[in-house]
Amino acid sequence: MYQLFFSPGACSLASHIALIEAGLPFELMRLKFGDGQQRSDAYLKINPKGRVPALVTPHGILTETPAILLFIAQMAPERHLAPLDDPFELARLQAFNSFIASSVHVAHAHGPRGSRWASEPTSLEDMRRKVPETMRAHFSLIEADLDGPFVMGERYTIADPYLYVMSSWLEADGVDIAEFPKVEAHFQRLRARPAVIAALEGEARGVS
Amino acid sequence: MYQLFFSPGACSLASHIALIEAGLPFELMRLKFGDGQQRSDAYLKINPKGRVPALVTPHGILTETPAILLFIAQMAPERHLAPLDDPFELARLQAFNSFIASSVHVAHAHGPRGSRWASEPTSLEDMRRKVPETMRAHFSLIEADLDGPFVMGERYTIADPYLYVMSSWLEADGVDIAEFPKVEAHFQRLRARPAVIAALEGEARGVS
Repeated sequence: MYQLFFSPGACSLASHIALIEAGLPFELMRLKFGDGQQRSDAYLKINPKGRVPALVTPHGILTETPAILLFIAQMAPERHLAPLDDPFELARLQAFNSFIASSVHVAHAHGPRGSRWASEPTSLEDMRRKVPETMRAHFSLIEADLDGPFVMGERYTIADPYLYVMSSWLEADGVDIAEFPKVEAHFQRLRARPAVIAALEGEARGVS
Repeated sequence: MYQLFFSPGACSLASHIALIEAGLPFELMRLKFGDGQQRSDAYLKINPKGRVPALVTPHGILTETPAILLFIAQMAPERHLAPLDDPFELARLQAFNSFIASSVHVAHAHGPRGSRWASEPTSLEDMRRKVPETMRAHFSLIEADLDGPFVMGERYTIADPYLYVMSSWLEADGVDIAEFPKVEAHFQRLRARPAVIAALEGEARGVS
């Protein structure tokens, strides 16, 4: 049994969906960001970074979405959620997820979380204004590379729920997903998956 | 034969060191950031993101340091540069490298590259002022977790050259590495390794 610490609709949703796709048993542990629970002493003992997701496993605690997703894929190899036997393809998958984590998610975060990197209200406002431009630039690269129904082509992998979560943030970022027709089709395709529907319902209820 | 596109001292240095540690044959391809070569049409065909590193392999091109490092470790399993047979330990390693890519490198980049996320000179100045604080916060977490001679404990892995590069940026970021004694010892340990010495000499000469 795993425990996934999450906040509804945060990037932890990617790991949540992947756990369901992998068929692994887990318990949802909701953090209320509005109450600052991610900075509570109790949670900082689980994840000193004060962020979601954190996955509690029998071996120890994992953080960082690209790492948690890879772990989930490895725990359910029969579900083929990553090309585990092909080092180049696996690296290509990790490159996509790393780009999401270090560029796309970071660009988005300059809207709601600019105070991580600057202090003055004018700077935070400047950052917020630039979010549509940076998100558009990153999604243009994703759109250009999206050749199949899924990120890695014909096969659904752990890259897909991660892209899905980023796509779900576009509207709030001031970007119309329709500017990226292949991304939009991917988003609709994901939204129809039972695992995605179940994850969204689980996060709304706050339990798995 | 691989080709590594790099800029001296940039995060590509981690992949450069790892290639040497792995004993893989490679050619160094220098990009002159001062001349804007990373935004040239020729390079954008190799990496549309216009960043380093990019690793040209017989299978295709890889980008993003955590992915390239994992690929290098998998291409030389006899060098044990990653715990490839232990999914939890491998995820722990990927979590460290993902934290470097999406938090530490990003915090650093708000000094020299703030214009990625804001436009006004006052915002860029505000970002630059905050870099020591964010780098210090991230390195405090790294220091607290650094229990062995290397990031993963007793064994040198692909996490070590990545941490080494981040540590090498601290002075320019306005942070005294001596505030973090275990990180400083790690930095000195790495600096004495033949692969690190060879990589630094190679980048100074611009050839492998």
